[in-house]
Amino acid sequence: MDDIRLARAYLSRVAEPPAVALGLLVGEVGPVRAAELVRAGDVPDAIRDETSARAGHDLAAEDLARAGQAGIRLVVPEDDEWPAWPLLSLDNARARGMRWAAPPLALWVRGPASLDEVMQRSVAIVGARAATPYGEHTASEFAYDLAQQSVTVVSGAAFGIDGAAHRGALAAEGLTVAVLACGADVGYPVAHTALLSRIARAGAIVSEYPPGTTPAKYRFLVRNRLIAALAVGTVVVEAGRRSGARNTASSAAALGKPVLAVPGSVSSPMSQGCHDLIRAATATVATSVPDILEAIGTIGELAERESPPPRPTDGLGPQAIQVHDALHRRTPHTPQHLSHQSGVPLDRVRALLPELELTGLATQTEEGWLSTTA
Amino acid sequence: MDDIRLARAYLSRVAEPPAVALGLLVGEVGPVRAAELVRAGDVPDAIRDETSARAGHDLAAEDLARAGQAGIRLVVPEDDEWPAWPLLSLDNARARGMRWAAPPLALWVRGPASLDEVMQRSVAIVGARAATPYGEHTASEFAYDLAQQSVTVVSGAAFGIDGAAHRGALAAEGLTVAVLACGADVGYPVAHTALLSRIARAGAIVSEYPPGTTPAKYRFLVRNRLIAALAVGTVVVEAGRRSGARNTASSAAALGKPVLAVPGSVSSPMSQGCHDLIRAATATVATSVPDILEAIGTIGELAERESPPPRPTDGLGPQAIQVHDALHRRTPHTPQHLSHQSGVPLDRVRALLPELELTGLATQTEEGWLSTTA
Repeated sequence: MDDIRLARAYLSRVAEPPAVALGLLVGEVGPVRAAELVRAGDVPDAIRDETSARAGHDLAAEDLARAGQAGIRLVVPEDDEWPAWPLLSLDNARARGMRWAAPPLALWVRGPASLDEVMQRSVAIVGARAATPYGEHTASEFAYDLAQQSVTVVSGAAFGIDGAAHRGALAAEGLTVAVLACGADVGYPVAHTALLSRIARAGAIVSEYPPGTTPAKYRFLVRNRLIAALAVGTVVVEAGRRSGARNTASSAAALGKPVLAVPGSVSSPMSQGCHDLIRAATATVATSVPDILEAIGTIGELAERESPPPRPTDGLGPQAIQVHDALHRRTPHTPQHLSHQSGVPLDRVRALLPELELTGLATQTEEGWLSTTA
Repeated sequence: MDDIRLARAYLSRVAEPPAVALGLLVGEVGPVRAAELVRAGDVPDAIRDETSARAGHDLAAEDLARAGQAGIRLVVPEDDEWPAWPLLSLDNARARGMRWAAPPLALWVRGPASLDEVMQRSVAIVGARAATPYGEHTASEFAYDLAQQSVTVVSGAAFGIDGAAHRGALAAEGLTVAVLACGADVGYPVAHTALLSRIARAGAIVSEYPPGTTPAKYRFLVRNRLIAALAVGTVVVEAGRRSGARNTASSAAALGKPVLAVPGSVSSPMSQGCHDLIRAATATVATSVPDILEAIGTIGELAERESPPPRPTDGLGPQAIQVHDALHRRTPHTPQHLSHQSGVPLDRVRALLPELELTGLATQTEEGWLSTTA
């Protein structure tokens, strides 16, 4: 097992993810043999293209040691805790031209959570860095409620929505997982170093990149697919028209996973991305945690949704409603008057009034009939 | 023509709308003969049920005179300006059990607008009476912009969203039509008497009910179908879970007309109804007037929609983006360093850098390459 981990650590640094051709080679000959071939440069062009820039740089042992010191372990597909993500696959990557759909070669993980376990009931809550107070409040509330129901909250540890989501889950003493676009030992953003430590205490910090890797724009896009693939479903809380959260949403949708978006003010640019997702039917509407639990149906419980409060007139037919409409609360009316007012025939009015009385909607006085509701 | 108008004025008061059986009789024998039969009580049970309560009360001549004094005319299906609403039909009412789908027997109209003409480019803007400032602002803005584009704004003259919609259209000196659940001469709500006068100056006040008819709960529901049927499409701006605006939306949807709903804060009860409509796919998302114009496609113009602002890196392939990510704005880097950082093979880096330079994204210095964008 040590040689497998060493080989995957090497490959993890050699190829910039997602590496489709290398992934296929590993699938064919195994990680140890694949590492040998890459080291020797004895690979077809497609793999050379993915690996030649760093093939000579074998830092595997160093990386594993450095990771160990930082409390980071390398989780590999050969481990029990490797997450089940049948949807992120090399077949998809190859057959449908979805390069991003290639699964990671390995994951660097900091924190005690077993990846496989915590992801079985998980929701990604993602959104814009430049979030509004409305968005941060909503992210935090949703995360709090989900964490209280033992749902793991997955996000990207960025400013704005991501941070609010992690904090909400932590406030509920729930599990939360941060997936980074840099090494799991790199505190990015710097202002979130303490937050990341809190996340790693019970949950996990996850990265496809070896220790010390700095974040880069391209890596954020590549990371987003991991968030989408790890969580059972994805909720976009706020997103501008070019937000990376939309990218996460598209990945989740392409993987056939439930995507929800939180509506907001039509004048808020930070809700535009969400409204676009809903309009395009990429996302459904998330206004509450029951909405989310219902969409993430595989989580297994039945979401309780409030139904609108019943009205006393709910079960009445149209003629009964017309007669009831014609009744007054203080001025009693005769059946003749009520018939004329409502347009309902007199004999029907005479039959309906006692029915209304039985359901508490009308009352008879010496001068005529009164309504007993507002 | 006078006898037709007189007959329809009589029938308009005799039967509480919607009167399916009476409508069918009028279709068969014409309004004049139908009025005679109803007056004589010589009708089948279904029609007697709709007419017996008021059949003896012939106020047609009085109603027409009283209407005339109030500037109200009776518009009948035999008139040129009778709106074309193939979707509201007795066939629908009978065949699909949609009693409410019966068209009106006549319409009492106050105001100079020719109904048929103004409805050809029209949008209903409806919503809760207990609207929030957000809802009223949005209704008013949408109505203003639509009116400026010569779209007639149809609503129900109620407090809240309705009033804001009418006012927005009037502020743009556009046409607006109020459809009432009471006589066209009845200023309801009383506080909107002046607003109704302003609406009637260039637009129209429309009612299925003869002069003097008071509003009733049942009549609001019946009126809502007329709003849905008259306008090309319907926009719900705010609606509680039991708002009448949802009823208008369902009617419009059942008639196969476009329905839109305005999203809002997930914590606002007044947006719940809108979110429910969107979730149920009864309505699409309306965040702007272009959304509305696009949905109301029959209006004929192409809605202009803003596309997200382009980014300089938009056309780049993944390797070019990776190389660009590795560039720094102030510290020059060699191709070797960039290859190692990005994971892109050295020969590809050497080919891509001049491409990036051509598109203004990179620049070469004596010490190496720099990024020229943020």
